[in-house]
Amino acid sequence: MTNNLTTIVASKSKTVKISRDLPTVIIGERINPTGRKAVLAALKEGDFDIVRQDAISQVEAGAAILDVNAGVPGADEPALLKQVMQEVISVTDVPLCIDTADPEALAAALAVYGGKALINSVNGEERSLEAVLPLAREYGAAVIGLCMDDDGIPETAEDRLRVAGKIIERAGKLGIGPEDIAIDPLALTMGADSNAGRLALETIELVVKEFGVNITMGASNISFGMPDRKYINSTFIAMAIHAGLTCPITNPLVMEVNTAVLAADLSMGRDEYGMNWIKAYRNRQKANA
Amino acid sequence: MTNNLTTIVASKSKTVKISRDLPTVIIGERINPTGRKAVLAALKEGDFDIVRQDAISQVEAGAAILDVNAGVPGADEPALLKQVMQEVISVTDVPLCIDTADPEALAAALAVYGGKALINSVNGEERSLEAVLPLAREYGAAVIGLCMDDDGIPETAEDRLRVAGKIIERAGKLGIGPEDIAIDPLALTMGADSNAGRLALETIELVVKEFGVNITMGASNISFGMPDRKYINSTFIAMAIHAGLTCPITNPLVMEVNTAVLAADLSMGRDEYGMNWIKAYRNRQKANA
Repeated sequence: MTNNLTTIVASKSKTVKISRDLPTVIIGERINPTGRKAVLAALKEGDFDIVRQDAISQVEAGAAILDVNAGVPGADEPALLKQVMQEVISVTDVPLCIDTADPEALAAALAVYGGKALINSVNGEERSLEAVLPLAREYGAAVIGLCMDDDGIPETAEDRLRVAGKIIERAGKLGIGPEDIAIDPLALTMGADSNAGRLALETIELVVKEFGVNITMGASNISFGMPDRKYINSTFIAMAIHAGLTCPITNPLVMEVNTAVLAADLSMGRDEYGMNWIKAYRNRQKANA
Repeated sequence: MTNNLTTIVASKSKTVKISRDLPTVIIGERINPTGRKAVLAALKEGDFDIVRQDAISQVEAGAAILDVNAGVPGADEPALLKQVMQEVISVTDVPLCIDTADPEALAAALAVYGGKALINSVNGEERSLEAVLPLAREYGAAVIGLCMDDDGIPETAEDRLRVAGKIIERAGKLGIGPEDIAIDPLALTMGADSNAGRLALETIELVVKEFGVNITMGASNISFGMPDRKYINSTFIAMAIHAGLTCPITNPLVMEVNTAVLAADLSMGRDEYGMNWIKAYRNRQKANA
């Protein structure tokens, strides 16, 4: 099997290709009330200014896809998620990554989304596989597969690989090819386990070697509880790109992280003549002028 | 063959172990007149203040080994190199990396050095192999092997691996084991060839897989001619550490580079409880206070 599968995600007007032969695709993480009090408060009050602002600023900073999460405790999530998506679509044309743990909200969102969405996420739990994969199939969406199952999050890279394989196999049985799966190795907090980073990196390498699928990952948890987190996150994301990460879920407004992604692409020979690097440098110069 | 050979380098009083199981060893690059006009001018005038300062500041910043180069055009290099080494030894006790293209200077330096030096460098050229390896053998030194030979610098990772193999084999015939060789894949300028970074990373991976030796690399040339070089260098060095780099030759006074090395070790599970990370953070806080 090739180790360079191409995942396609699209809005009505814009297509994004994810592949180890192309520059890294940043999925902007900020439209998410989890851990962001201001967003949570605004969504509760039906105020979508922050959402629209976050959409615009992340795309300007280089996000090619936007993660959209409307997980507000007590809210009508299907309705709220659709609303948030509409607000985002009203100001940008990038494809969306629909981020919900609620199958009903996911179905509602997919039904109104006009493009080929990325679903965040399915995992190896029976309940999740049975709820999410048929929806991905029905709407022709791509889907993020988390390396955890009914036994929890495996503690070895080999066991996480096994869960990835299970998700890919189950998807395949429904006619969803591996090109439509992006595996998330799960990067846990190094403050709790010094080996958490290494484990995620090893999982990426094993999954890429075995299945050739695209790899996504939230790269912020890794540094939780440590000082100067942005330096850890930016370094870790560069190492993960070297391991095979193709579409990190991250905050492109953090200069160190954004720069690390661009420099990693440059170092991997995915930025001919350094054109993207130089363009981003000029934008930083303008922003600081 | 294991892929975790341990290289030992030592001064009279201090031993440094280099291994993929241990934190990255920074070889401080600054004691070198090449491209540093102030150092060049000072050495020409017999002024060693800068040398001593560079030795102290690099060790304070985390260098575990100091590269020492006295390549001043027109100077008596054997005498000057010995003098520079003496000045460095007068202020620090870390092991030295003796950096010269002149076999006579190398012999003179090894003869006065009291520990187990690291020689920078031999390459695959017949003339180099014949001049340097017997000296490494005679003085029990470890040696850096550059991936180039009489045909120049190979343009594929496979051909660079072949040169590394030739150096390791020739060293072996003299009784110098692979644990005493650190291979330098050669990171050329990406501004001239967009693939230069990728080629160096691939070479590291092949050499590590095949021979298990330690890997050194100058990680600054890679960004020559590009803007914001420190971000490229720091990202590239982190990716190279993930690939197998164990003892980069770099400037630990550049915060971004130093931080990337520490964060890379943290991410590779080589910094238990993040102790080194937190210590370095506190030192940065003190320095900025």
